[in-house]
Amino acid sequence: MNPVVVRAISALRQAVHDVRRRGLTVGFVPTMGALHEGHASLIRAARKETGFVVVSIFVNPTQFGPHEDLARYPQPFEKDLALCAVESADLVFAPQVETLYPQGFRTAVEVGGLQDVLEGSSRPGHFRGVATVVLKLFHLVSPDHAYFGQKDAQQVRIIQQMTRDLNLPVEVRVCPIVREADGLALSSRNVFLDTAQRKNATVLYRSLVEAQAMIKQGERSSTVLQRMLTERITATPGVILDSAAIVDADSLQPIDPLREQVLIA
Amino acid sequence: MNPVVVRAISALRQAVHDVRRRGLTVGFVPTMGALHEGHASLIRAARKETGFVVVSIFVNPTQFGPHEDLARYPQPFEKDLALCAVESADLVFAPQVETLYPQGFRTAVEVGGLQDVLEGSSRPGHFRGVATVVLKLFHLVSPDHAYFGQKDAQQVRIIQQMTRDLNLPVEVRVCPIVREADGLALSSRNVFLDTAQRKNATVLYRSLVEAQAMIKQGERSSTVLQRMLTERITATPGVILDSAAIVDADSLQPIDPLREQVLIA
Repeated sequence: MNPVVVRAISALRQAVHDVRRRGLTVGFVPTMGALHEGHASLIRAARKETGFVVVSIFVNPTQFGPHEDLARYPQPFEKDLALCAVESADLVFAPQVETLYPQGFRTAVEVGGLQDVLEGSSRPGHFRGVATVVLKLFHLVSPDHAYFGQKDAQQVRIIQQMTRDLNLPVEVRVCPIVREADGLALSSRNVFLDTAQRKNATVLYRSLVEAQAMIKQGERSSTVLQRMLTERITATPGVILDSAAIVDADSLQPIDPLREQVLIA
Repeated sequence: MNPVVVRAISALRQAVHDVRRRGLTVGFVPTMGALHEGHASLIRAARKETGFVVVSIFVNPTQFGPHEDLARYPQPFEKDLALCAVESADLVFAPQVETLYPQGFRTAVEVGGLQDVLEGSSRPGHFRGVATVVLKLFHLVSPDHAYFGQKDAQQVRIIQQMTRDLNLPVEVRVCPIVREADGLALSSRNVFLDTAQRKNATVLYRSLVEAQAMIKQGERSSTVLQRMLTERITATPGVILDSAAIVDADSLQPIDPLREQVLIA
């Protein structure tokens, strides 16, 4: 069955209110559309654990920098709806920009210390935009569980911290990365890659796997690991390295030597 | 009947969950304790409009600057409970500081443009602390209506804006200022005034009333009004003027000449 498509806040609230009265729990998968198998895995997890599954499709302008790809971000809406139907989502919330950001909007959430490192350092304001829109969507959908992909590790860490710090009554579920057969993580932006770029992009996965193997063999020096990652990636034609970092999975601060949970980003 | 006193988040959530199942609406009055007739008027408004009234008593450290009066802020807890009992509040939420700000807490809300003007300019971080704790309390109590006093006009404006911008499912109710017979607005901090200061403090009310009268008689110049306020207040022994401003009630930006709704602060 096709999901109900809702564009207005009032209709969304009414729908959620009605299913709650029927005693159902609500699962929520926030997306920017251009859905792929990674999103599908989130919808399936929600479908399994909750009684009513809401998917939001909203290309959030506040998380794009002025020179980023907002204008050309893919928006295959009908295809997205078809995927939601296949995965038995119940409701798709697809608001207009003005619905979420009316005239005079001026509020933002800061998750101190986690927003401005790693990807955040090269994309100022990005995670502030992400955290703020997710908080708004949590208030609109009021889910019991919300589902995010481990692919966006820093985003996941920020959402978890925000949820805990602000006492949001939402369980954040993190689902594994879904990869192509050759290891490339699925991403809506992979369509921007030409054939050569697509082939070379697997260096990310291959170097991560190599780092993991080195750690399993006893390597504990972040410096050594980082050097290997940097060499592998910069040696690949057409790949420009933004940063390769080994950080504490909790604080996202650089850590050397390795201890406890680390994130290789 | 005495209200239930709750210190733990889990007990609060359980209590609210239970009353919602009974079909009751929830009214919420956030306070820092040291309750007076102003707070009582908020509790009465909540009592009138909702089925279950929650009062929080929490002296929020993050809204005090390093040289402010956190350590000596009055905390007459038993007296506060007695007032809550008289006004028939159902539940008092009085968490410990560590309950709301556990180790590693790092999230804050910014309401751009409204936080750093007027009182915010002399109290950096104050309204950021207020907005953040109110957002947390909204998530914990999940009220239908929340009640604030017009006395803290800038705070009210910020909470309203945050509630709208973040799509919080809460109705913010603003109740009139409660004053002593001679016009001084009730405040938990009035106990800090000695006899002479207490007497002189009424210059605030008297100059506001005079400004109002001038406006009614046709005065539209903020400059003229501000000069009168500044003269009246600085001429009063023992009173140090922080700022006297005439601002647009919506943007909190200075406005001259007067038009639409203005706030004299």
